[in-house]
Amino acid sequence: MKVGIINVTGYAGVELARILHRHPEAEIAAVTGRSAAGKKLAEVFPHLSALDMTITEELEESVDVVISALPQTASAERLAPVVAQGVRAIDISPDFRLKNVDEYKTWYKTDHPCPQYLESAVFGLPELHRDEIPGARLIANPGCYSTAVILALAPAIRHGIIEPDIVADCKSGVSGAGRALALTTHFSEVNENVMAYSVDGHRHLPEVTQELTRVSSGGPPGITLLMHLIPMTRGILVSCYARLKAGMSKAEVRQLYADHYRDEPFVQVVSESPQTKQTLGSNSCKVFTTVDVRTNRFIAIACLDNLVKGAAGQAIQNMNLMFGLPENLALEQLALYP
Amino acid sequence: MKVGIINVTGYAGVELARILHRHPEAEIAAVTGRSAAGKKLAEVFPHLSALDMTITEELEESVDVVISALPQTASAERLAPVVAQGVRAIDISPDFRLKNVDEYKTWYKTDHPCPQYLESAVFGLPELHRDEIPGARLIANPGCYSTAVILALAPAIRHGIIEPDIVADCKSGVSGAGRALALTTHFSEVNENVMAYSVDGHRHLPEVTQELTRVSSGGPPGITLLMHLIPMTRGILVSCYARLKAGMSKAEVRQLYADHYRDEPFVQVVSESPQTKQTLGSNSCKVFTTVDVRTNRFIAIACLDNLVKGAAGQAIQNMNLMFGLPENLALEQLALYP
Amino acid sequence: MKVGIINVTGYAGVELARILHRHPEAEIAAVTGRSAAGKKLAEVFPHLSALDMTITEELEESVDVVISALPQTASAERLAPVVAQGVRAIDISPDFRLKNVDEYKTWYKTDHPCPQYLESAVFGLPELHRDEIPGARLIANPGCYSTAVILALAPAIRHGIIEPDIVADCKSGVSGAGRALALTTHFSEVNENVMAYSVDGHRHLPEVTQELTRVSSGGPPGITLLMHLIPMTRGILVSCYARLKAGMSKAEVRQLYADHYRDEPFVQVVSESPQTKQTLGSNSCKVFTTVDVRTNRFIAIACLDNLVKGAAGQAIQNMNLMFGLPENLALEQLALYP
Amino acid sequence: MKVGIINVTGYAGVELARILHRHPEAEIAAVTGRSAAGKKLAEVFPHLSALDMTITEELEESVDVVISALPQTASAERLAPVVAQGVRAIDISPDFRLKNVDEYKTWYKTDHPCPQYLESAVFGLPELHRDEIPGARLIANPGCYSTAVILALAPAIRHGIIEPDIVADCKSGVSGAGRALALTTHFSEVNENVMAYSVDGHRHLPEVTQELTRVSSGGPPGITLLMHLIPMTRGILVSCYARLKAGMSKAEVRQLYADHYRDEPFVQVVSESPQTKQTLGSNSCKVFTTVDVRTNRFIAIACLDNLVKGAAGQAIQNMNLMFGLPENLALEQLALYP
Repeated sequence: MKVGIINVTGYAGVELARILHRHPEAEIAAVTGRSAAGKKLAEVFPHLSALDMTITEELEESVDVVISALPQTASAERLAPVVAQGVRAIDISPDFRLKNVDEYKTWYKTDHPCPQYLESAVFGLPELHRDEIPGARLIANPGCYSTAVILALAPAIRHGIIEPDIVADCKSGVSGAGRALALTTHFSEVNENVMAYSVDGHRHLPEVTQELTRVSSGGPPGITLLMHLIPMTRGILVSCYARLKAGMSKAEVRQLYADHYRDEPFVQVVSESPQTKQTLGSNSCKVFTTVDVRTNRFIAIACLDNLVKGAAGQAIQNMNLMFGLPENLALEQLALYP
Repeated sequence: MKVGIINVTGYAGVELARILHRHPEAEIAAVTGRSAAGKKLAEVFPHLSALDMTITEELEESVDVVISALPQTASAERLAPVVAQGVRAIDISPDFRLKNVDEYKTWYKTDHPCPQYLESAVFGLPELHRDEIPGARLIANPGCYSTAVILALAPAIRHGIIEPDIVADCKSGVSGAGRALALTTHFSEVNENVMAYSVDGHRHLPEVTQELTRVSSGGPPGITLLMHLIPMTRGILVSCYARLKAGMSKAEVRQLYADHYRDEPFVQVVSESPQTKQTLGSNSCKVFTTVDVRTNRFIAIACLDNLVKGAAGQAIQNMNLMFGLPENLALEQLALYP
Repeated sequence: MKVGIINVTGYAGVELARILHRHPEAEIAAVTGRSAAGKKLAEVFPHLSALDMTITEELEESVDVVISALPQTASAERLAPVVAQGVRAIDISPDFRLKNVDEYKTWYKTDHPCPQYLESAVFGLPELHRDEIPGARLIANPGCYSTAVILALAPAIRHGIIEPDIVADCKSGVSGAGRALALTTHFSEVNENVMAYSVDGHRHLPEVTQELTRVSSGGPPGITLLMHLIPMTRGILVSCYARLKAGMSKAEVRQLYADHYRDEPFVQVVSESPQTKQTLGSNSCKVFTTVDVRTNRFIAIACLDNLVKGAAGQAIQNMNLMFGLPENLALEQLALYP
Repeated sequence: MKVGIINVTGYAGVELARILHRHPEAEIAAVTGRSAAGKKLAEVFPHLSALDMTITEELEESVDVVISALPQTASAERLAPVVAQGVRAIDISPDFRLKNVDEYKTWYKTDHPCPQYLESAVFGLPELHRDEIPGARLIANPGCYSTAVILALAPAIRHGIIEPDIVADCKSGVSGAGRALALTTHFSEVNENVMAYSVDGHRHLPEVTQELTRVSSGGPPGITLLMHLIPMTRGILVSCYARLKAGMSKAEVRQLYADHYRDEPFVQVVSESPQTKQTLGSNSCKVFTTVDVRTNRFIAIACLDNLVKGAAGQAIQNMNLMFGLPENLALEQLALYP
């Protein structure tokens, strides 16, 4: 199977290359990247010296699947002709995640370049949409925060055990902001520092709401997301809070979660507060629940590696499912600890 | 004025020494520390080479005020005779913060060694108790998290603008855990990692509840605190969430906060999301508010340096107030940036 | 092939487990660890939840090879009966690295527990001793610093292009100090800090001298090693300095290095200053040379992941060679970047 | 005394403001910064909220001394008219450090804008040039690395105890690279990483050589500087290596250093390996020496805070000397530990 990576030069793109290098059934056939076109991949990224490939400006090879790691809008523009040609595509950008084109415009401040694909695109969170992925032509890979928040909350919402008024306090390492330069990702500004950002609303909110509404037996939950930047490179941890409806105990809540995710290869329900370090470099998402019995508050914590389960790893999980391969091919790597 | 520091060898103790070194009206007369007794202060802490003092096992000098940086219980035991002798004392430990001796036993798993001092001890948060501090014999310096959470929430609760059902998601650097060795503060375990801890309840909860109940016109608020360990040395940032009662706007909430803290020398109400780095080494606490208009949720964020406004700096602010000195003596230092 | 890991609970031990998990020809048959005996591996190390094993106090299974990650002396004591029984062994501790038993006593301050194995033990640096490894019963895995320094200098010394008076300035992440608690590995002490340590001589010096003397056509080189602790978890970078003998150019030196390591699967001679991040989690060692033409000084820089090529990865490379397997089995992982 | 800061918006500039805020004899009269002209200082740098000043494009106030924190060339261009008007100036840029105008062109790739001031400019390292500073109109503040290397080596070279063939291996935090954005200071690239840079020669070499030649009784020393970037914000540590000439002992070398720096307020000769953390935020430089007796190699280690003793603090030390003030005014701050 031949894979093309569009925009290999960002962090998600380069992580795709790293993971696919060990894929027994897939071959990286082409990698694009406008700024580095013409250079050897290993010249730009010495850690990929085992991959003897030249970065091109456009996809020149014919491939079986294209994975785009372009930014928003640019990604949809580049994928539209690919999809039109019948090549299957996985988009790591947010362009095909929202079903509602007006929401897209509201949050991304631009008209959608190809709204005709929104309906058939599948939101690529296998834990919610595993059955739809094999038949999809176009997968919208979820956001890194969204993956963590949805996985933390979906069982509670599906089983109706919490009130629909939810706070998700999210902490992320800096690589989530990508490789583009900014003062907010300048080492001396971020190191030894914590801050909240996007305090007026983060773009992952509509996709989180869309997906949690789908699993909700009641109406759409009202969610506040607040994002925090943490002085580390990789990792997301989200702590979610809501009122527990019925008088469930800690143990019952945890059992409900354990049952819910029992067969998931990449979600582990854990009994100790999880740490992002336990997921570094792996496709694992660890989910933990507890109850603050003083206030009868439900707490769910999830963590993952934002570049793996939050981006490139999940894209390959989706690719495996699309092509009928074992879901964990190339994703067996355990977390790098310490 | 002569000051004695009990247990100078922890991070709060050594920070007291650093700050007092520049105090124009106070002189460090004695420093104790059992494990390092007999050694020169500069031998154990080379950054204090300007201070030519020997660490003793017990306070030998007569002093005007004692500041204890001992751990819980040990601190009360050591301060009881000091207070009995009529020497004024500031306790950085939690021993005299809770008015309710049963709460103390519940959270600290031991009987209080000298409950007779609980009633007269003043909770040393000047922003709440400035008038009581000058007359106090014994000050209970607030916890680091507590300082941030109380300062973030007190205006909203006093003015009754939020529902009393509150989540405070707290992030702290590692120095809050002190200088004692543990796997959870071992560099390779903490670096590149985030985790929640004390998930069944943190000891700062009862003092936060006690103090916010005092300012509340309604009953006691129901608060969930969840603590997170962040890979940095100093700094606490708390994000607090509650339903906004009346239909107040972001601007009105911020104005209410600005008015509330207008005359406070060490609390700044800011209009951009604050960063712990903006407080590094200073006695400043920065407070920010916003409203998630989609869910009508009130958000208050506060940050500070856990060893300064969260411990040693606040102790010296209290000392200044106790002795009728200008409140900011020795505390003029601006934050070290970047 | 069945592998037993002695002392799986240190950082080298747990890294062995991580890497062996993906080994197609080897199976982890037993893991020991005194302090955690009786516990599930996943209970102590949640990132290893995919490995369903119980930690035992002693090796109970019969295995084909034992890898010891015990500290010095304890390791030799535990391996002696293993070797006596004819089971092949790889020792990550320093116990069998030095041929000279007096040197051992000088540096490790104790008599060697089983000097009879010193002569036949093979120093497990494949780049120097590949031919001897397949026939070895006992492999002494090199130290992390030693691997970097020897690989940086061996070509220059073998080809006689530098004076034998050498400085190696070494920088290491904190995981090299292991999982045992100490003030020098306490997060708040190490973070935002750099220091030299072992300023009177580091224990890796005799093994570096022994091995570089072997490749030297002249006498033993006189080497000064100075170690520095860097605020990061993994990675070693060494910068080595010596006078260039003949009037070789930068390009000629680099060509000599490129030729020397041309067929090595895990050493890359690079043309840009290498970074430890380019080796994170991989078994790669990157080597770079230049010449300070103002002083005619030769400079060689090498970097690697101290827990992989500097410990567990190299042990598995040795194991592959011992058992006639492809050298890179289970070691194909590319570096985790960023 | 009125001080003008040119280019307050870089890290050295903002650090000048922080330190001068506590100067009892100096007042910040004006701050310039082209990109932020018209903004309040506190708007750009919230940690300076105590300073109520507006950033201007040009110095508009008449001042007694100007301190420039502009980059090279731009600084000389802007200071030339200031000096011509007879206003005293301190230049943190490298523009007036080198006496030899050809060296300037070689290293900075441009003609010097005002070479007429090179001769009278004083190299502002008080430990070498204290007597010349009071009479100077123009001070060239030394580079951060240069300060550390010169202070580490000057006693040995002045007293002729080492061979003139020297290696200085330098490690720096990232703030030395300033606030301008670059991939090499992007958080995700620098964190958990160490690398050498400027491997073909660093611009601080000529000023180090110039100053060490001045103190040398023999000819100019031949020095190799190699710079390394360390994942921390502030701090420089340099390890210098040379052959010890006579058969001096460790103790004799250390005594020679202790005697040499006995009266220096900001240089401490220490007897344990120093750490950058011991200097954080302070104007202190810690110097340590030892001897590798196996190779008779002299080792000198120095560390400091690159933005204080390596830049802004030293500038203010120079300013104090220029104006006949006590040398340590505004510089009494002890290091922030931990």
